[in-house]
Amino acid sequence: MIEWRDIYKVVTAMVPLYVALGLGYGSVRWWKIFTPEQCEAVNRLVALFIIPFFTFDFTIHTNPYTMNYRFLASDGIAKVITILVLAIWVKFGRKGTYGWSLTCFSLSTLNNTLIVGVPLFYAMYGKWAQDLIVQISVLQAILWFGTLLLGLEIRKAGTMLPSTNIELRNVSCTEESEVKKAEVVEVMEVRIPLKQLLKTVWLRLSRNPNVHASILGLTLSCIINRWKFELPSVIEGSIQVMSRAGTGCAMFSMGLFMALQEKVIACGLGLTILGMVLRFIVGPTTALLGALVMGLRGNVLRFAIIQAALPQSVTSFIFANEYGLHADVLSTAVIFGTLVSLPVLVAYYVALGLIN
Amino acid sequence: MIEWRDIYKVVTAMVPLYVALGLGYGSVRWWKIFTPEQCEAVNRLVALFIIPFFTFDFTIHTNPYTMNYRFLASDGIAKVITILVLAIWVKFGRKGTYGWSLTCFSLSTLNNTLIVGVPLFYAMYGKWAQDLIVQISVLQAILWFGTLLLGLEIRKAGTMLPSTNIELRNVSCTEESEVKKAEVVEVMEVRIPLKQLLKTVWLRLSRNPNVHASILGLTLSCIINRWKFELPSVIEGSIQVMSRAGTGCAMFSMGLFMALQEKVIACGLGLTILGMVLRFIVGPTTALLGALVMGLRGNVLRFAIIQAALPQSVTSFIFANEYGLHADVLSTAVIFGTLVSLPVLVAYYVALGLIN
Repeated sequence: MIEWRDIYKVVTAMVPLYVALGLGYGSVRWWKIFTPEQCEAVNRLVALFIIPFFTFDFTIHTNPYTMNYRFLASDGIAKVITILVLAIWVKFGRKGTYGWSLTCFSLSTLNNTLIVGVPLFYAMYGKWAQDLIVQISVLQAILWFGTLLLGLEIRKAGTMLPSTNIELRNVSCTEESEVKKAEVVEVMEVRIPLKQLLKTVWLRLSRNPNVHASILGLTLSCIINRWKFELPSVIEGSIQVMSRAGTGCAMFSMGLFMALQEKVIACGLGLTILGMVLRFIVGPTTALLGALVMGLRGNVLRFAIIQAALPQSVTSFIFANEYGLHADVLSTAVIFGTLVSLPVLVAYYVALGLIN
Repeated sequence: MIEWRDIYKVVTAMVPLYVALGLGYGSVRWWKIFTPEQCEAVNRLVALFIIPFFTFDFTIHTNPYTMNYRFLASDGIAKVITILVLAIWVKFGRKGTYGWSLTCFSLSTLNNTLIVGVPLFYAMYGKWAQDLIVQISVLQAILWFGTLLLGLEIRKAGTMLPSTNIELRNVSCTEESEVKKAEVVEVMEVRIPLKQLLKTVWLRLSRNPNVHASILGLTLSCIINRWKFELPSVIEGSIQVMSRAGTGCAMFSMGLFMALQEKVIACGLGLTILGMVLRFIVGPTTALLGALVMGLRGNVLRFAIIQAALPQSVTSFIFANEYGLHADVLSTAVIFGTLVSLPVLVAYYVALGLIN
């Protein structure tokens, strides 16, 4: 049973994130402190230095030999279910298109695991939940963003073939005709040199310092826990001096991002609702399915559902923007999703606490 | 007696600062990640958001009712001795000029108290020393930077009078002739509307968010400790989300500053040595005098001497730059002083540890 002080603890963990976010937003919108080019500098500082150290710091402090593999499998099953349903939708659905299936995958599975997840789950369930969300974040950074990138690269390769040169960018869901859809399906069936695409995906992933941080962190943590030693405190300190800036600076940078957008809702009400439904209902539902398949119980089951309702991952917007696929929808999902996530997450926490 | 593990602890506390500094330096010089305009953005983030929260956070966690007033008085005496000696030098010395007396005051008294001082003294002597350095930092932010600003404003008001329109900028010590010196002394004796100058100084101080943070922090800490209550953890968390970024981001930003300078030593060898002597020998010596006057003993005496040998305050460079007074000397003192301070501080720590 969840008590008031449990809720207070969760709110206490989350409010500071919104304070940092508000400072970032206000610094552009109200106090005119940063120009757009300067915001880019803060984003670089966060993306290239602070977040990789943050990821590395948390990754080396989890023990890969005591990972909860049942939970990680349930998470994998949830994502595979999502992919299968979307594939069926593209193949047989009247309105299913390949581009939209990629966006729906993003919206229902890719979360802001570390920045929001770490303080949130520590407040909700303690250290084990924080460790689990870190493990999920490593998998997400490598496996699931890799999957999304592969999908985006396949689409790009397809749209670049002369016979199927379809411009899907900035076309909203309801405008896409049956003809176009058929063409996209055809593109997918064109022989694409998959090896080359995988190489592109890998190159793209390896340009992301956070992926390096995840892989290096996981490797180091395997070594540390295999031979049971501790890092010298001077190395711990050197990692933490940057990683401690993680939460504040990342949320500040998110505030800058929000302030630079013309509107909070960039893509129309219908698509906003679609994004929110995928994020806060479909995501947790597939997570529940995965958890049932793996027979999860108790707090791990609760955790599995709630972590699926975290705000939208910022990286998923960055990819959408880069590949010109529904960037407005993802931007709205990030902004609006982050703003409304606090009550949604607390509601899930309370509701799931009622169930024994 | 200082043991090896004490030294290791101090080095462990300091090395992470240099790691952050190196990342900042490398991001400009080696990896070309930031343009000069973008560096300005990072500096703004640090100066306007992160450092004020850092100052506020540490200030509200000291108890003003248990301040070590004898130590604070000894620090005040040390600075007054410095001012008196410099005043005598300007009035009677053959080479003493007003502008150089201001620069010498900066070089021998104004320290990087919080960013370097907090982790350093916590490692050396524990919590009480950290509290003392925070108290010194509050006094420095308001009183001693106020004094420096007043001096700089008097000089500016003097040099703006038509009859004594002397260009002292970028003139190095040995180039200033006797005639110019005489004129500057004369300027000081011209009736200057002191009230107006004080107003200017106050306005200038009140534009600095760190001064607000110091005053607000001190006020709040008086209230908290008077009525013995604790801040709600949601407020503590909201302050810490930004303040935790303090050490890493401030040192990173210092690294950017170093990388943007053409040379590590901008002002010639002679002036560099002068700066280092004032910083690392004259400063601690006047601190020792002040401490002897107030009869300090034991670790507080050691602390009083070592804190005077902290690296040069970055703010003192900013002022020098703004008022066009020996900015190159201050820039060198900040850069070179920060780089060499680790061995110097450890040497003082060990040497003073040998004395009972």
